[in-house]
Amino acid sequence: MTAYLLERAWVDGAVHDDVLVEVEDGRFTAVTPDSDPPRAIPVRGLVVPGLANTHSHAFHRALRGRTQRERGTFWTWRDQMYALAARLDPDTYLALARATYREMAAAGITCVGEFHYLHHRPDGTPYDDPDEMGLALVEAARRAGIRLTLLDTLYLSSGFGAAPEGAQVRYSDGTVEAWGDRVDGLVVGPHARVGAAVHSVRAVPAADLDAVAERLRGRPFHVHVSEQVAENEGCLEAYGVTPTRLLADHGLLGPGTTLVHATHLTDADIALVGSAAAHVSFCPTTERDLGDGIGPSRRLHHAGARLTVGSDSHAVIDLFEEMRAVELDERLATQQRGHWTAAELLEAATTTGHASLGWDDAGAIAVGQRADLVVLDPASPRTAGTGRDENTVVFAAAAEDVRRVMADGRWVVEDGDRAAIGRELDDIIGRIWEETR
Amino acid sequence: MTAYLLERAWVDGAVHDDVLVEVEDGRFTAVTPDSDPPRAIPVRGLVVPGLANTHSHAFHRALRGRTQRERGTFWTWRDQMYALAARLDPDTYLALARATYREMAAAGITCVGEFHYLHHRPDGTPYDDPDEMGLALVEAARRAGIRLTLLDTLYLSSGFGAAPEGAQVRYSDGTVEAWGDRVDGLVVGPHARVGAAVHSVRAVPAADLDAVAERLRGRPFHVHVSEQVAENEGCLEAYGVTPTRLLADHGLLGPGTTLVHATHLTDADIALVGSAAAHVSFCPTTERDLGDGIGPSRRLHHAGARLTVGSDSHAVIDLFEEMRAVELDERLATQQRGHWTAAELLEAATTTGHASLGWDDAGAIAVGQRADLVVLDPASPRTAGTGRDENTVVFAAAAEDVRRVMADGRWVVEDGDRAAIGRELDDIIGRIWEETR
Repeated sequence: MTAYLLERAWVDGAVHDDVLVEVEDGRFTAVTPDSDPPRAIPVRGLVVPGLANTHSHAFHRALRGRTQRERGTFWTWRDQMYALAARLDPDTYLALARATYREMAAAGITCVGEFHYLHHRPDGTPYDDPDEMGLALVEAARRAGIRLTLLDTLYLSSGFGAAPEGAQVRYSDGTVEAWGDRVDGLVVGPHARVGAAVHSVRAVPAADLDAVAERLRGRPFHVHVSEQVAENEGCLEAYGVTPTRLLADHGLLGPGTTLVHATHLTDADIALVGSAAAHVSFCPTTERDLGDGIGPSRRLHHAGARLTVGSDSHAVIDLFEEMRAVELDERLATQQRGHWTAAELLEAATTTGHASLGWDDAGAIAVGQRADLVVLDPASPRTAGTGRDENTVVFAAAAEDVRRVMADGRWVVEDGDRAAIGRELDDIIGRIWEETR
Repeated sequence: MTAYLLERAWVDGAVHDDVLVEVEDGRFTAVTPDSDPPRAIPVRGLVVPGLANTHSHAFHRALRGRTQRERGTFWTWRDQMYALAARLDPDTYLALARATYREMAAAGITCVGEFHYLHHRPDGTPYDDPDEMGLALVEAARRAGIRLTLLDTLYLSSGFGAAPEGAQVRYSDGTVEAWGDRVDGLVVGPHARVGAAVHSVRAVPAADLDAVAERLRGRPFHVHVSEQVAENEGCLEAYGVTPTRLLADHGLLGPGTTLVHATHLTDADIALVGSAAAHVSFCPTTERDLGDGIGPSRRLHHAGARLTVGSDSHAVIDLFEEMRAVELDERLATQQRGHWTAAELLEAATTTGHASLGWDDAGAIAVGQRADLVVLDPASPRTAGTGRDENTVVFAAAAEDVRRVMADGRWVVEDGDRAAIGRELDDIIGRIWEETR
């Protein structure tokens, strides 16, 4: 057992001073505010639970700053992303993911949901181990010291019913059964979980969705939904219903479901998502970057949906910015302030995010929970003078304010690691672009 | 003369390697890319010109993280800001501004436009030196090592025609003549310029605007315009025209004018601003925070207006974020990508910003220009792998990536100063809230 005395920490919905936490076998065994213990290791700063990043495509990190050169749409951005996807192999996929997950760890993220669809060789044939690419991600998270839920993604068609083309041949397992068998074959360590995903209603025909529901076996289930108006139009044309309705009709909308983006929803969609108590993963910095639009976060909340946040395309990896962006973009849409409180947004990025990824025992500084700690500097130029509470965390802090991070009882990031993480990212991304020139 | 060899720098609209710059009396006397000089001080990193922050209310920095607690509108936020404004004195005003300007310097800002209206004692009577509060700002900038344009602001009425009330009595000079005389009396050092401002068409009756135009004497002129729909409605009701039209009708819209926010404009307003070749100051992080809405930045550009950026309320002080927010918010409004290039946004934050503040000899790494250098880390976790060019600066960097800053030939920020700046902010803001409890 190790005892730490946290100078100030977010416990049970409020900030408390002098919080004694005892950690054993990676979990909190005691959490006591206002303590004055004789012996405990002091932890200076403002401490919050580990953050959960519910939507990641790790390899997109290599696109940061490189897809801004031309005008265009979501769809032209996707072409650039495909060009990169076509060239990655298990070695570069692992190295890039490890560096990206280390960037996440340094930003206070202790758990990531990786929406993984780059399954097969460039010609579409399986690797010798058909799960080699997915296991590269699992290993990358282990090396970075964070937990991972591998959202192994089914992708069968390009658009509504067309065969996969170009880089997409790497994504397809051909049938729901082949996908399900491959997912069932995944064996991961204690730091990882296996979840399931449908890429989108564009990528899996409606006729296959019942079979998907049968293969979920209680796993967390994620799906991109209504990020673009064009997807809604295509779905209505193909099936006569919205994407949300289509998923609900096939048994894929429930409390274990996370709808990613959920940007362009009808009133009926919002009611459906809410009554299912489903999760939604908002990724506002990506949704800005791709020009998706502003989703109805607060209306979803009122209907009963549960908000989480993700960094998705990694144009930025900073869940502090994602949290406040949910509120700020709602302000832009409504010209009113004060939709989400800082406490609600922090809950979205911690306990609710972890629940969406299948970790019900993480996201809070509480007895029995996994021992994750994110130590922020409350007196940096960005955070100084902002009150040292949840408003500092949500409305002032940036990833750079994270000083130390503990995941599952182990310090995985120490102040001073940032330079090495930057070098690692620079090396692998430089290598990938060099090779793909 | 001192010679520096910049590893990589933004010169004449492109990044160049090995740029030799010679600095004498605070200006560049030589700028030569692809150099291999025998003797020059190496400067590692990605170097850009000094940034100009065209819209600042320094004292708002004390509100960061403290105005998010309640629901409400721009107008309820303003009540909280007034409560703070009512309590500041010349000493606290100076100390808070110095700390805020140091935060700006550390974020690469070498010149600030301070929109200053807190002129008089709490009871509305002048200080012994009627310019004492303005001169406190001038001194604060000097101590922080950056340039300042004091946009001395006329404020005569609350709403359209009502007398100033509450904290506003500190703002009012009573008449245009008294304001003009006070402004004429300002004597500032070589690091500062005196500009003029009208708070808004709410705060200065139309009948006084001709007299304002006569007192400008060629100074830069700034004015808040159409930040809120309610302002437009009030102006139409009072005068039958939009705020932009009202300013134009009174000779206050020209190339020396900067319209701050310019969020809710008509097509005719946009054409007017463009044909005047006026500047606009977009402050997107504040405009998000206050729920103002998304202004027509690109349409203004196409009409002929000149974009600059400001951090305004200092919810964030990070012009890298402001630059990309102009583009990202335009994407949210249009669901299209690629309105502004990184090069255009960097120009807005450097040369155009400086021009808006009356400094035509700053904002570029070029012979004869003021020697400002902002050295960024191109291999931090945020910036690594992003191409080491203007896209790195605009679409990846944060204030924390600034390593060193030179203003007017002098290094004013060195790597390692951030902790001291944080402490200074923490001390003064803590003191102000303690005193106002």
